[in-house]
Amino acid sequence: MDYVKARNSYVSKIDGRLASILDGKSHPPAIYESIAYSLLSKGKRLRPVLLLGACEAAIPPDTGDASHEVVKAFRLACSLDFACAVEMIHTYSLIHDDLPILDNDDLRRGVPTNHKVYGDAVALLAGDALLNMSYELMIDNSIKYQYLRCLPAMAEVARAAGINGMIGGQVMDVYTEGTRVDEATLHYIHENKTAALIRASVAAGAIIGGAEGAGLEKYRLAASNMGLAFQIMDDILDVTGSEADLGKPIGSDARNAKNTYVSIFGLERAKRDYFNLWDNCIVQFDELGARFLTNLAKDLRDRVN
Amino acid sequence: MDYVKARNSYVSKIDGRLASILDGKSHPPAIYESIAYSLLSKGKRLRPVLLLGACEAAIPPDTGDASHEVVKAFRLACSLDFACAVEMIHTYSLIHDDLPILDNDDLRRGVPTNHKVYGDAVALLAGDALLNMSYELMIDNSIKYQYLRCLPAMAEVARAAGINGMIGGQVMDVYTEGTRVDEATLHYIHENKTAALIRASVAAGAIIGGAEGAGLEKYRLAASNMGLAFQIMDDILDVTGSEADLGKPIGSDARNAKNTYVSIFGLERAKRDYFNLWDNCIVQFDELGARFLTNLAKDLRDRVN
Repeated sequence: MDYVKARNSYVSKIDGRLASILDGKSHPPAIYESIAYSLLSKGKRLRPVLLLGACEAAIPPDTGDASHEVVKAFRLACSLDFACAVEMIHTYSLIHDDLPILDNDDLRRGVPTNHKVYGDAVALLAGDALLNMSYELMIDNSIKYQYLRCLPAMAEVARAAGINGMIGGQVMDVYTEGTRVDEATLHYIHENKTAALIRASVAAGAIIGGAEGAGLEKYRLAASNMGLAFQIMDDILDVTGSEADLGKPIGSDARNAKNTYVSIFGLERAKRDYFNLWDNCIVQFDELGARFLTNLAKDLRDRVN
Repeated sequence: MDYVKARNSYVSKIDGRLASILDGKSHPPAIYESIAYSLLSKGKRLRPVLLLGACEAAIPPDTGDASHEVVKAFRLACSLDFACAVEMIHTYSLIHDDLPILDNDDLRRGVPTNHKVYGDAVALLAGDALLNMSYELMIDNSIKYQYLRCLPAMAEVARAAGINGMIGGQVMDVYTEGTRVDEATLHYIHENKTAALIRASVAAGAIIGGAEGAGLEKYRLAASNMGLAFQIMDDILDVTGSEADLGKPIGSDARNAKNTYVSIFGLERAKRDYFNLWDNCIVQFDELGARFLTNLAKDLRDRVN
């Protein structure tokens, strides 16, 4: 299957499953609407696609064992709710970030942010509900499949989402607002706010697929490079992109006096580091034999020219 | 061991473990201080005490099997981080509830609320971090003990904390603010906002202890009665209590036009239902042979005279 087809197939599985999780649910009022508004909006589904791609890549190759097909099907099936769970965590973090008491953003993916539509109180609770729902989903899934790799996969996601991951990065971002940070602090913010959940998505998928030891570590490394490159891309596009492409106002980082890779290192260095990170990421995924992830990395890299 | 000693011993285990989880952690700045401020404040520790008490009660009696002591010690040890996790969930819900965009409360347990001290942004993130930390803790604990009952215990907590539990009750509370609700809606709010996490604390403890089937169901039932009685107690004390006893202004429900058991049913009916719920709860815990929980229920009941 070629890369575009594979990616579309992953996205359609994820969209379908997310919709079915919310399907028919309307009580208590307002909250499911608010959740669906953000969770079912057309996003790139990057994290869940990475999780599914890593799972498929990490499944051991067929060596003629009669059980291979059933093991493969089981692990792929088990990975889908983990993929939905990381998308829920990503979505909750966007809803909370956009709230007036944090970034106070009115527009996201070209449409009004959650609290602009449903009010601050419901948006706050929708975020809480999504974070909790992601764990309900992973836990229920682990009970359903009774698969021993579910717990370490959950642990990977939980750490990345928490105070030693995404929330830690967000805290540091808030804490340093309006001051110019040093390189180590900028790295801490990017590493945690953006790269941690991307790395955990890849690692959780790889764990469910069957990766361990040095192989698993290589998945983590490749995904770290991708995560940092991804954040630099955001920072570059906020300077060089267009509002129509991004679905949100450009130049918002500069207006908010945000510390970005571009503001600290300049555009030229940002672009150089960006391409170096992708080069490493692509070589690493290629060496793992993860063809889909290699192609996805190339595709993402080419968003910046 | 008598009841008061047993309760103090549980509380001191919980306080010690919570403090050790946060001990020495200070990076990123502000957030650990904010978390410690709320998590380590002197609370009743009702939910974690219930969890530890239910675990101990549900451990099968010693029938002379040589493994009994080691099994008992293992299950008690495993229950402690679950107890801390439910306290983290309770604490996060208070921090978020108190925010200006929800209840806008300035005082909690006699001291300024989290956002009054650390600001709205940090309080929001501290709440998010605590919710996530509770899952990190339960998941890491499940990996550490490799005990098959951890997953169903986690599932019990996750459901109670989520949209079909505490968050659902909170949503309905926000949604109906300023309108007079019917009995079914009031019941929905109390059942989910308050009783669900109390029931889950008891059930998760009982599961770790070894309860299943009809026995486990009886733990759930007794805890449901306790949870509803506990909410009615809050509503009654908001009318008849003193600010000094409660650590927060009394009469706030009436001022905020909140729907309470007292505002809907009147004080007399509230007291009657209150004592009926406790009677049922006490009989049920007694029939389970759960002496500590029976005594705890009697002690809590007597807060309203």
